[in-house]
Amino acid sequence: MEEKILDNIASPKDLKSLSVEELYSLSDEIREKIVATVSDNGGHLASNLGVVELTIALHSIFNTPEDKIVWDVGHQSYAHKILTGRCDRIGTIRREGGLSGFPKRLESEYDAFDTGHSSTSVSAAYGLSCAAELCSEKRYVIAVIGDGALTGGLALEAINSAGRSKQNLIVILNDNKMSISKNVGSMARYLTKIRMGPFYLDTKSKVHKRLDRIPVIGKPTSRFVSRLKNWIRLNFFGHQKNMFEQLGFKYYGPLDGHDISQLRTAMKAAKRSKGPVMLHVRTVKGKGYEFAEKDPKIYHGISAFDIETGEAKSSSKGFSDVFGAFLCKCAATDKKIVAITAAMAMGTGLSEFSKKYKNRFFDVGIAEEHAVTFAAGLAAGNIVPVFAVYSTFLQRSYDQILHDAALQHLHIVLAIDRAGIVGEDGETHQGIFDVAFLNTIPSVTIYSPATFEELESMMYDAIYRTSDVVAVRYPRGSQLYIPEGYKYSGETYTLTGNKKADILIITYGRLFSFASLAAEELRRNNIEVCILKLNRIKPIDPRSVTEAKSFSRCYFFEEGMRIGGIGEGFGLELYQQGYKGKFDLIAIDNYVTQAKVDSALRKTGLDDYSMVQRIMEDYKQE
Amino acid sequence: MEEKILDNIASPKDLKSLSVEELYSLSDEIREKIVATVSDNGGHLASNLGVVELTIALHSIFNTPEDKIVWDVGHQSYAHKILTGRCDRIGTIRREGGLSGFPKRLESEYDAFDTGHSSTSVSAAYGLSCAAELCSEKRYVIAVIGDGALTGGLALEAINSAGRSKQNLIVILNDNKMSISKNVGSMARYLTKIRMGPFYLDTKSKVHKRLDRIPVIGKPTSRFVSRLKNWIRLNFFGHQKNMFEQLGFKYYGPLDGHDISQLRTAMKAAKRSKGPVMLHVRTVKGKGYEFAEKDPKIYHGISAFDIETGEAKSSSKGFSDVFGAFLCKCAATDKKIVAITAAMAMGTGLSEFSKKYKNRFFDVGIAEEHAVTFAAGLAAGNIVPVFAVYSTFLQRSYDQILHDAALQHLHIVLAIDRAGIVGEDGETHQGIFDVAFLNTIPSVTIYSPATFEELESMMYDAIYRTSDVVAVRYPRGSQLYIPEGYKYSGETYTLTGNKKADILIITYGRLFSFASLAAEELRRNNIEVCILKLNRIKPIDPRSVTEAKSFSRCYFFEEGMRIGGIGEGFGLELYQQGYKGKFDLIAIDNYVTQAKVDSALRKTGLDDYSMVQRIMEDYKQE
Repeated sequence: MEEKILDNIASPKDLKSLSVEELYSLSDEIREKIVATVSDNGGHLASNLGVVELTIALHSIFNTPEDKIVWDVGHQSYAHKILTGRCDRIGTIRREGGLSGFPKRLESEYDAFDTGHSSTSVSAAYGLSCAAELCSEKRYVIAVIGDGALTGGLALEAINSAGRSKQNLIVILNDNKMSISKNVGSMARYLTKIRMGPFYLDTKSKVHKRLDRIPVIGKPTSRFVSRLKNWIRLNFFGHQKNMFEQLGFKYYGPLDGHDISQLRTAMKAAKRSKGPVMLHVRTVKGKGYEFAEKDPKIYHGISAFDIETGEAKSSSKGFSDVFGAFLCKCAATDKKIVAITAAMAMGTGLSEFSKKYKNRFFDVGIAEEHAVTFAAGLAAGNIVPVFAVYSTFLQRSYDQILHDAALQHLHIVLAIDRAGIVGEDGETHQGIFDVAFLNTIPSVTIYSPATFEELESMMYDAIYRTSDVVAVRYPRGSQLYIPEGYKYSGETYTLTGNKKADILIITYGRLFSFASLAAEELRRNNIEVCILKLNRIKPIDPRSVTEAKSFSRCYFFEEGMRIGGIGEGFGLELYQQGYKGKFDLIAIDNYVTQAKVDSALRKTGLDDYSMVQRIMEDYKQE
Repeated sequence: MEEKILDNIASPKDLKSLSVEELYSLSDEIREKIVATVSDNGGHLASNLGVVELTIALHSIFNTPEDKIVWDVGHQSYAHKILTGRCDRIGTIRREGGLSGFPKRLESEYDAFDTGHSSTSVSAAYGLSCAAELCSEKRYVIAVIGDGALTGGLALEAINSAGRSKQNLIVILNDNKMSISKNVGSMARYLTKIRMGPFYLDTKSKVHKRLDRIPVIGKPTSRFVSRLKNWIRLNFFGHQKNMFEQLGFKYYGPLDGHDISQLRTAMKAAKRSKGPVMLHVRTVKGKGYEFAEKDPKIYHGISAFDIETGEAKSSSKGFSDVFGAFLCKCAATDKKIVAITAAMAMGTGLSEFSKKYKNRFFDVGIAEEHAVTFAAGLAAGNIVPVFAVYSTFLQRSYDQILHDAALQHLHIVLAIDRAGIVGEDGETHQGIFDVAFLNTIPSVTIYSPATFEELESMMYDAIYRTSDVVAVRYPRGSQLYIPEGYKYSGETYTLTGNKKADILIITYGRLFSFASLAAEELRRNNIEVCILKLNRIKPIDPRSVTEAKSFSRCYFFEEGMRIGGIGEGFGLELYQQGYKGKFDLIAIDNYVTQAKVDSALRKTGLDDYSMVQRIMEDYKQE
């Protein structure tokens, strides 16, 4: 077996002695490694393939870990992990106990800041940069941010704030013309424009300096010379001050993000600069893997796939698909329905809608705050907006839901995808907070389907039978076990099983499947249980609490945070009504680390096995 | 008495027949009315005085309420209210049952969208504009946004999203160089720059059109002509495409915001435009009232004051002052401490800090999201950042607190001012959600002082004795009643009063004062109660729950949302530990409308009188 360069890279220090040619060979090796890893484990492919040369250039020019690199979103950090002492463990990425798919400070001193959600890097890097100055430590801080993430308000706030500072903050704009889908909005159009401008770097500033040296004598001459200078500037560089320069950044670019030498030259220039600098780097998402280059949005985040054919190893109809198809059906007969996404058309199942109802489909970019307030504006204009969004990203919109929609009783529909535990993406992406934070807002209604049929029916109720803010939340993936003969009642709750039983399991959403399996297993052990399935989880139907009173033991299983969740209020209400039995609440108390969904549910005590154990134990003690 | 023009303005339609001279007289009358009203009721003065001519011009050119005006923040809508049939009720503004200090759809059809928090207007107006198109209604939608609000990410997201659309959305940038304090960041610097540019409007576009008509023959000529055109453009208009133009907006300005004719001309041009338009309007905050013009930040939001002297009618040392002074004291000996504000240096008591520790003071603009992630970055660099923020505005930072700080266990301190009911600003500004939403986040600690001494002590604990995210929340205004001999124990909770009593009041924060008064009143009625005062409200010390078990009745009073609040979890835990008594939770169930704090507390059942009533009623029933 041929020796690989990668085998001799124990840390970024080992890059310093390599020739540019060797760095290119290294980039090939890293690409191969990434494709092999992701095809096996699933993960983010296209974005990682796009930044291989950029990552190599960064680690060869900067002095990490003393210098700090903040990876925006962080899904593009695989090459970074490979180069920073984690190459041998890269095969464990996104697996339980393995490397995280995102930077993690606890994992490596080379990971300067934990990321996961978009658009945080400039704020964090600016903070690190100010901290270094306050601590009199001389270091470079670099934020690597995609053009998609740049549509997020947080990043724009940070650019505004940092642009006026004197910090030598280096922002690398990794411009691949994509968010997860194609990037949208005027910023995207604007970047296209400057992308086509000439490459100018040191030459530019040298000429500018020379121009500045033309002496200025007397006023009329001065005005003439100044015009002449501008004329030269305009005509020889075709360049107006661009937006980032107007906001206080020194701008270098656009650079070829796959040209290591060019990148290194620009990075050296950035190091020499004073004040905030932006390097605008053009990269190709999916670079070097044919299938991913062709269709980067498919290969953005992906399950395990076959390297030769590029085909996913598994795929079945999920809640997202059912949602998307149902919304198309509604939109066909109801012109008031519009769909909104924050750069997630495909992930949320809106691809078909986006093609069929082009003028009623709004991709607002990675901008969850704007998505909700925009929806509120639409609702104030008598339109019914449906914002499809992952639970974890909706955290961004808390104030907009509360202040802009709920408070003025506007009817907007939140289609919350990836609700509950999502698995391998880990802590930053779990959908375990939405119920708790929406629960704090008066006049919000939340539905929680367990089956495809329920999703459709509840979505219908959300659109046509409910006012104010309504959320319908459903998990990642497909529907799970449905007990024979189960049919959605359309009521706010459903009581199934033996109503004379001593034991009641209360739950909602997909845990209903686990509860049903648990009930069957318990029955085999001669323990009868009844299941109270909550369909509308906010507001809780008071009759459902009354139903629970007749059972001597209640177990509330909740795939979401305990504090502020549904179970807490349910339990207190039950006791306040004079309940004398035992109410047990099993919910999530802490962040949930990466693992397959099944395993994570087991560890949080929420799968059928755990339910049976819990109930059996109590039973034996009696 | 002289007849006033204002007396004959029943609706904006009555403006159409007035001469420009009469419109100026009207603006004087409106100014007088605003000063008189705010001096009496308190409210937002400087911002309202700044937009009188702008408001008159808007209502004289546009056809409201069919055309929609969205006022960003909405604190500048007094002139708008006066002109839209609410002049006779303007004296009731901010009073219980009176007009709101912000636009309210329920109050008037002229109020197109409810506002209160900053930076929402462009999103909402873009939504209203798209809705009109989808409903085939022809109308203009205008967002009026300040330069301060433009530093908010939400507004920037909206500009990115709307900039590429074909909607004839009109954004009026009300540029007064201020947020609440002086506006900051590179956007502010940038606006200063374009502010100084020449006024160009129709002339400009006429010349551009003429230039475009110069025929182009053959390629070399073409290049020459194109350069010539650019040369003319540059030299005769001194104008580069500015940032807003680069983002897809047609730009008119800067305009004199106090010149009604100029404003009207520009608005007419904006109506004729296609696609999104920005009118950049320069206004003077506080215009026309000497004291306010001189020091607009003092007169931004103000209590009742004396018109002649400009002096506030009441003022006493508040929690903000104590916080600010204490933080200065800490900073004097500890160089790691920095203070962050989102455009609220004065309101949060940081004026002195900002002067004394200039390099450790960061005003990030109206950008609460960035403030928190920036703080997380500082913390990752071993600095101790203290972010002072009003409770209601911290709602914006939910995901940043959760995802960027708490999840990676970074130590940042949130100094949450205006916690609890704030009074006359009403629903949009109540600080009643922070406990509930912070409660959903694991590893966050929350302290709740009731006195100045406690604030200092808890702030010390937050900075030096607690890890991860720590919040210290305190109310608007001054400390209230402190029972004789009460001294802060420094423990997680304090039990005061007769420990053998049957009745226990549990509470935290300033309600402790009301609970103490209630206990004294009850004692006079021969009812003994004990008070359990929670000092650290998250996590709850389990011993405090155990203490409560020995009382036969527990009343938990909470100045915050019931769902997700502290009482709910406390009560459930109490019952789960086998409590057999009665646990009663009195907390906030809905939005709280404007009223003086005392009155709002009475209405929500949280003042001493209500406490006594509640307990006496139960007592009598026994």
